[in-house]
Amino acid sequence: MPFTKPLPSYLVQRYHGWKATTYDENKSWYRRLADEGQRPRAMVISCCDSRVHVTAIFGADQGEFFIHRNIANLVPPYEPDGDHHGTSAAVEYAVTALKVAHIVVLGHSNCGGVQGCMDMCTGHAPQLEEKTSFVGRWMDILRPGYEMVKDIEDPQERVRALEKRSVVTSMENLMSFPFVKDAVDAGELTLHGLWNDIGEGGLEQFDGTEFVAI
Amino acid sequence: MPFTKPLPSYLVQRYHGWKATTYDENKSWYRRLADEGQRPRAMVISCCDSRVHVTAIFGADQGEFFIHRNIANLVPPYEPDGDHHGTSAAVEYAVTALKVAHIVVLGHSNCGGVQGCMDMCTGHAPQLEEKTSFVGRWMDILRPGYEMVKDIEDPQERVRALEKRSVVTSMENLMSFPFVKDAVDAGELTLHGLWNDIGEGGLEQFDGTEFVAI
Amino acid sequence: MPFTKPLPSYLVQRYHGWKATTYDENKSWYRRLADEGQRPRAMVISCCDSRVHVTAIFGADQGEFFIHRNIANLVPPYEPDGDHHGTSAAVEYAVTALKVAHIVVLGHSNCGGVQGCMDMCTGHAPQLEEKTSFVGRWMDILRPGYEMVKDIEDPQERVRALEKRSVVTSMENLMSFPFVKDAVDAGELTLHGLWNDIGEGGLEQFDGTEFVAI
Amino acid sequence: MPFTKPLPSYLVQRYHGWKATTYDENKSWYRRLADEGQRPRAMVISCCDSRVHVTAIFGADQGEFFIHRNIANLVPPYEPDGDHHGTSAAVEYAVTALKVAHIVVLGHSNCGGVQGCMDMCTGHAPQLEEKTSFVGRWMDILRPGYEMVKDIEDPQERVRALEKRSVVTSMENLMSFPFVKDAVDAGELTLHGLWNDIGEGGLEQFDGTEFVAI
Repeated sequence: MPFTKPLPSYLVQRYHGWKATTYDENKSWYRRLADEGQRPRAMVISCCDSRVHVTAIFGADQGEFFIHRNIANLVPPYEPDGDHHGTSAAVEYAVTALKVAHIVVLGHSNCGGVQGCMDMCTGHAPQLEEKTSFVGRWMDILRPGYEMVKDIEDPQERVRALEKRSVVTSMENLMSFPFVKDAVDAGELTLHGLWNDIGEGGLEQFDGTEFVAI
Repeated sequence: MPFTKPLPSYLVQRYHGWKATTYDENKSWYRRLADEGQRPRAMVISCCDSRVHVTAIFGADQGEFFIHRNIANLVPPYEPDGDHHGTSAAVEYAVTALKVAHIVVLGHSNCGGVQGCMDMCTGHAPQLEEKTSFVGRWMDILRPGYEMVKDIEDPQERVRALEKRSVVTSMENLMSFPFVKDAVDAGELTLHGLWNDIGEGGLEQFDGTEFVAI
Repeated sequence: MPFTKPLPSYLVQRYHGWKATTYDENKSWYRRLADEGQRPRAMVISCCDSRVHVTAIFGADQGEFFIHRNIANLVPPYEPDGDHHGTSAAVEYAVTALKVAHIVVLGHSNCGGVQGCMDMCTGHAPQLEEKTSFVGRWMDILRPGYEMVKDIEDPQERVRALEKRSVVTSMENLMSFPFVKDAVDAGELTLHGLWNDIGEGGLEQFDGTEFVAI
Repeated sequence: MPFTKPLPSYLVQRYHGWKATTYDENKSWYRRLADEGQRPRAMVISCCDSRVHVTAIFGADQGEFFIHRNIANLVPPYEPDGDHHGTSAAVEYAVTALKVAHIVVLGHSNCGGVQGCMDMCTGHAPQLEEKTSFVGRWMDILRPGYEMVKDIEDPQERVRALEKRSVVTSMENLMSFPFVKDAVDAGELTLHGLWNDIGEGGLEQFDGTEFVAI
């Protein structure tokens, strides 16, 4: 297979640094996690964006959070049609196998995926409308959200509102999964919506009506 | 929306701690990342598992890696059918919009998703065969990999082999995306396959034929 | 001393976060506590169990409670034989030096120490009977309590009864210390017995005869 | 039993506040901890002092740390004589039953127990020399530490040095327990020594030779 290449040496070097320090100081814990399995308290659904590090923000170490990351932290509606659904599989595994106590949906500012959705919905990104555009078809999940924010005049405010809609849309779609709704109704699972301002380091929380700084 | 709850207070406390230290010490960089956009050098595709922290292993900071995490670090084959494909969208965005130089697929030991696939393929998990099982349908991506390892007698060796097949399968499927293949052929993108031994802190690299320790 | 290791880095990070927030916001109080000494209103005797946080349950801040934690929140009988008695020393310091107004003994559900005592007393844990078993010898304090609950048929009810006996036994043993009895008789000290249901978040109080929900 | 009294109403009120908020928001996690048992990553041995809150300093929530608290965070030497040894029982349970990965000994400034030991060793506290003094007999554990610091001239420096000796003495005594030594030698357990400056919020770490700020 000619397409595989050796890892860049700066990453090899960093790995050996981690192995000699963090791993070495914590190896009994890591071995136990390997032997006994993970027991994370929460699932986090966040964006692939390189600027969003939920483990840093929450001082988390190995074993604490089960983390799914996709474009724009979206959860599609429940659709058990026999196809591959990576996000739905992650949610199913977290709730039914790991029995996490919390699902945290973490949105963020300056989200390229959300901006793409805005461009697409306002007619400025015809290429995203094509059937073959994976990003476009993925961002279709957020189209109903666009309808709710399209009348906001200020463009920056409008895109922030859409970023926050991506969090609420995901929470609403989560509730369309029977096993999520059952766990929430039984008091076994709570949902939490957050939005992170990357530049300012801010964190806002959805209180059921709006996002408020925590 | 009555199902949303305030964030557990220990996480609120930890966030404020991060804000006052890590954020405060790096805010000019975070602001620049927010203003100018991300420019990650690599995309990493890893598992949701709480025990796998690619940022820790590679000492990564905000802005370095565009990270997609799903069950068993799988990439499905190219299938532009107009449906939602979260993984394919993430790959498309990383390669065509962000123009990352590397894609790293990071598998790991003790993977619950891979174990589920093994159970399903050997007839020990009929519930995963149901059409409505998102985990089962997602792990279908790895079924061809099972065929390649099923004759290994030692059960632990067999499941490790399947964990590594999940990495190679993803790399092969990545090459089925025209924009990935074009970028690889043009020398603009390299693919890397890794497997992390959680308990031992080991890291092995796919050299085109087998996995060797780095 | 080669066995000492650096603190795991996630804890270092969290400490710096606490220092920059909670400490910084309260430093005049902490400095005064350091300069003038502590003046806690109550001593709490609770279990080492990671699931029992008396400071959380009672919203306590620094300076409020003098807290002794041991296996199964036990106080041994008064025995001034010149040996090391950590629990008796803590009680003596709290009552005679700090002159606390209350001693709260806080038991809890799902207590591993109490379960061990039950196993030992019913002959299911011979290893705990060995002279060298510190846990076994410590749980000897609760043996008389076992005699009082052994006829309860339902195993779960029986162990709950023993958990509550551990609280009452400790209160009775506290009264065997002359300085405790004198302070109680003089109206300078009151004793309180509590039992916390971890899963349900319940709290029951000993009223001299039985435990009732508060 | 006439000596038991109802809990002060301000504590009853705070409990109900905790139940309605923190408990309610986290009850699925607390229920799971109750059902499945605790799996703390570390044991912490700290002082009863009301000014030392390890959970606050490290942003810890229920389930993270198994905490033993006694006067001056002391561990006595291994002495399996069949008597009640609360500290040794807690260490035995943490290491052999819970298999914690770390033991953290946390000392602190302005420690009344250590000051008492200093007074006793310098002949200023004859009452602590009496056989019936539980505090005196408990602080005997630290007498060898006094010998190592007695030549420091500045009284405040001398008592700080003794506070830090209490941490190192405990670590050395921990190593006298066969099951601790075995776990350390096998790489399954690491020991960590810390000293907290209450007034300044500082934290220093023992590096095998001296304490350095972290």
